[in-house]
Amino acid sequence: MDIRPEDPANLPTRRRVRLLNRDDRLYHVILAQQFDRELIDHLCRISEMTRIIADARAGARFLNTILSHKRAMLYFIQPSTRTYLSFAAACQVLGMPYNDVRDPSTSSEVKGESEEDTVRALSQYFDIVIMRHPSEGFAEQMANMLNGMSRTIPILNGGSGKDQHPTQAMLDIYTLYRCFAESLADRVRQDPERNLFAGKTIAFVGDLARGRTVRSLAYLLTRYPDVRLLFVAPESLQIGEDIVEYLDRSEVDYALKFDLPEVVGECDAVYMTRLQDEHDQKGESGKIDLSRFSLTRELEPMLKKDLAILHPLPRRQELDTFYDTDPRAKYWNQMRNGMWMRSALLAYVFNVDGAILDHYYSYYNF
Amino acid sequence: MDIRPEDPANLPTRRRVRLLNRDDRLYHVILAQQFDRELIDHLCRISEMTRIIADARAGARFLNTILSHKRAMLYFIQPSTRTYLSFAAACQVLGMPYNDVRDPSTSSEVKGESEEDTVRALSQYFDIVIMRHPSEGFAEQMANMLNGMSRTIPILNGGSGKDQHPTQAMLDIYTLYRCFAESLADRVRQDPERNLFAGKTIAFVGDLARGRTVRSLAYLLTRYPDVRLLFVAPESLQIGEDIVEYLDRSEVDYALKFDLPEVVGECDAVYMTRLQDEHDQKGESGKIDLSRFSLTRELEPMLKKDLAILHPLPRRQELDTFYDTDPRAKYWNQMRNGMWMRSALLAYVFNVDGAILDHYYSYYNF
Amino acid sequence: MDIRPEDPANLPTRRRVRLLNRDDRLYHVILAQQFDRELIDHLCRISEMTRIIADARAGARFLNTILSHKRAMLYFIQPSTRTYLSFAAACQVLGMPYNDVRDPSTSSEVKGESEEDTVRALSQYFDIVIMRHPSEGFAEQMANMLNGMSRTIPILNGGSGKDQHPTQAMLDIYTLYRCFAESLADRVRQDPERNLFAGKTIAFVGDLARGRTVRSLAYLLTRYPDVRLLFVAPESLQIGEDIVEYLDRSEVDYALKFDLPEVVGECDAVYMTRLQDEHDQKGESGKIDLSRFSLTRELEPMLKKDLAILHPLPRRQELDTFYDTDPRAKYWNQMRNGMWMRSALLAYVFNVDGAILDHYYSYYNF
Repeated sequence: MDIRPEDPANLPTRRRVRLLNRDDRLYHVILAQQFDRELIDHLCRISEMTRIIADARAGARFLNTILSHKRAMLYFIQPSTRTYLSFAAACQVLGMPYNDVRDPSTSSEVKGESEEDTVRALSQYFDIVIMRHPSEGFAEQMANMLNGMSRTIPILNGGSGKDQHPTQAMLDIYTLYRCFAESLADRVRQDPERNLFAGKTIAFVGDLARGRTVRSLAYLLTRYPDVRLLFVAPESLQIGEDIVEYLDRSEVDYALKFDLPEVVGECDAVYMTRLQDEHDQKGESGKIDLSRFSLTRELEPMLKKDLAILHPLPRRQELDTFYDTDPRAKYWNQMRNGMWMRSALLAYVFNVDGAILDHYYSYYNF
Repeated sequence: MDIRPEDPANLPTRRRVRLLNRDDRLYHVILAQQFDRELIDHLCRISEMTRIIADARAGARFLNTILSHKRAMLYFIQPSTRTYLSFAAACQVLGMPYNDVRDPSTSSEVKGESEEDTVRALSQYFDIVIMRHPSEGFAEQMANMLNGMSRTIPILNGGSGKDQHPTQAMLDIYTLYRCFAESLADRVRQDPERNLFAGKTIAFVGDLARGRTVRSLAYLLTRYPDVRLLFVAPESLQIGEDIVEYLDRSEVDYALKFDLPEVVGECDAVYMTRLQDEHDQKGESGKIDLSRFSLTRELEPMLKKDLAILHPLPRRQELDTFYDTDPRAKYWNQMRNGMWMRSALLAYVFNVDGAILDHYYSYYNF
Repeated sequence: MDIRPEDPANLPTRRRVRLLNRDDRLYHVILAQQFDRELIDHLCRISEMTRIIADARAGARFLNTILSHKRAMLYFIQPSTRTYLSFAAACQVLGMPYNDVRDPSTSSEVKGESEEDTVRALSQYFDIVIMRHPSEGFAEQMANMLNGMSRTIPILNGGSGKDQHPTQAMLDIYTLYRCFAESLADRVRQDPERNLFAGKTIAFVGDLARGRTVRSLAYLLTRYPDVRLLFVAPESLQIGEDIVEYLDRSEVDYALKFDLPEVVGECDAVYMTRLQDEHDQKGESGKIDLSRFSLTRELEPMLKKDLAILHPLPRRQELDTFYDTDPRAKYWNQMRNGMWMRSALLAYVFNVDGAILDHYYSYYNF
């Protein structure tokens, strides 16, 4: 299951403790459930500040020194060029040297070693392990293992099986956050009462049954009352029952829809997704008519002027290249936002996010 | 075709504009034709200054900061360890973090994405794309695509198909420039009238039909009047008709020759090349007698005392290892010069070449 | 043969000279025999200081600048994730940019180039080549070749065939050095008379016939009088005759043993090793009963309180995971020590170890 509908406060105490450090600050980043609204807002602000600071040469150089005293291991056993490069670039933004293991066949596993030993051994050279792995729960299991070592380092989950991909959900929410804020000042303002998502209608379109991204994002959005969520998909690819139940329990305003043209005019954001037919057993996806779940150029006249178009990429025909140079296309930004959000997360985990806040207020006070 | 015989000034306006920035300064580096004599001389001077500055520890550290606020993507879809490492080292010289995509099968292309989308997506994390690609024209096409984005970044062509390899031609010309200058002062002097190549005889030897390197280099040398070019190859591997016609039109002094021993004594530089038999259809190269086109140790007594021996490497038997420790062997330097020239180009593209000039004049004024 | 029983002073003069620089300081690091006791002690002290300095943020940043003006090539033709990452991390500790060639098939060798040319060419971009290669003697051969070039750079042997792996022996001895010293002050104290290994009993257990690690380490330990060495292995896997003869000649106190439980209680350190059955011709190792050569949990009551358990990893059943969180388990530290020792060696080769000493005495004087 992608998202277990739990508030962080409701995580079993044992599990909570294992993922936090002594100050009750996030230590291992494993699950989307670890992020409460305060932390999401905080990380969006830090991302935004990082992005602005990096734009000036002096600022980029300041950021370059933030984590130059640490080293990261990118343990990416499941191939993923984009997520890999996004984390690598985030390390570079903060000046943190990194190295990687991307092909398990080159590792000592061939000599009959357990994978737990491999991770424990590699962890000796580094200060954090950023991990992408095909097995559900592997990242959390490694976090627990490292907690038992005399030298403990944090694990950052870069995607584990079909299970969890918390940094993707965080970069998506940051992209919406940037789109919905009315000004730069609005994006960096600290105000626990503020809810940028209030009154907004967000549609998730396409293969909602198999995309873990949509599930995590929908889950995180329940933390913002007064948001309205539309799930637009053919019957066979609709969002899972577990999420529907959780939305019911959370009293979120949502609806299941079966036709994009019918609702696209009401949307403040559409989150397009591609058919995940690599999970097909017998090519059953081939029979689905996706024309009602694609953002074609014919729909353009119906779109709101300040609509935000998102897509986790790669895309196929569900998102017409016609929109590529439209200012409402936010999917390229969305990738770049991933780099900023991952930088913010790394800064947070190493407790240097304060230095970013500090620098921002010193140079960009308003 | 390797080199279309055009002066930069004669490039169609539309094409010109697309490759330059607003100050009419080179932005995308795609074609050898983009380099006029003033720019070649300037980049040779910057290369030379970079080389000298890097030699001192304080200088190396200064250079390390020049581009530390940028990030490069090395998109090397066509395998090439040397060109890759040369660019990587150039990035390191200037302190620019980089990352790479070297194996397209790990990228999202497997999920049915167009390569244009892949490059556009990857470009989000970086400030320049250095690209090596098997398709002719691909780098230029990507430059045009990125020009249409709201966030545009430069493309640097590291070799596209049989078409263009502008940085190789530039490093070759820099190597000759270093050899022909009479002193260090001569190499860093700015004087638009000066022509280091005047009165020099340069022989290109070997497989001139299929090596793009020789074609580009010959083309660039036409910008220096009073140079004399010899093309020494068996009939079937002689330089292409298009280059010959261009040399005629440019009124360059040149000759086609069919025997190295006959002319080697007149040469100030010989540019050796290997048989490119990987392009053979039916092993036809096997029938060619290369002994008349090899720099054997028997030729040594005939060579000028200050001859410069160049070779783009890797070599085979056409260049005897006998010369490896001879001071006239410049082919190892030639590789290292590639690192300096590529550093100079990167500095130029990001408009920080002025900082190198500045540093040089502050510390090495004479 | 793994270790030729020679003192560095006894190396043939020609060979000695070829591996040293003009100040008679180690230049190429190729053989375990190059390390005499004074140098071992010195490098252990530098490793220890590096480790302590790196622990503070300001210290880590100081170290980051030590070699930022150099570049390393990691030429790892023989796959080895751990040794590779250990050297890479050591480069990062000292701020030295690096690059690698790990797959010979991507190199120009496919174009018919000799490997000597490849190394010589690659060396143009870098200031040191750290090399792991399947052929015995290859690293030394490359060192000699580079000595003949006008631009010479050092070679650091990261493991060549079954022959030599000097940095592994050095990290092992550093691990013992840390365990046997009584205090931090004791570990960084300079005193040529001091012998931390005096009176200690060290057992080597397992496959002693085929592990080059044990052979090199045993060899280096002969430089410390009053150490006692036990070789605990089944008859067919006992330590080689050549080492035994050398121990005899060196008048070291040693014994061959055939049962671990019998001797484990006397040991101050046990160095466990796994069965190297990848060298098997016909699976003959399958017939060996390893239960008498394994550190099982049943042996725990017999162990000394301050025993040091080492293992070069990866391990199999010969070292029970039961010990993983026991403070006597030093095998995780041992890996991390490799990073410090390799940092120390790099600093030494580039003659910046003095800067580390200096920094240490300025900030941690006692």
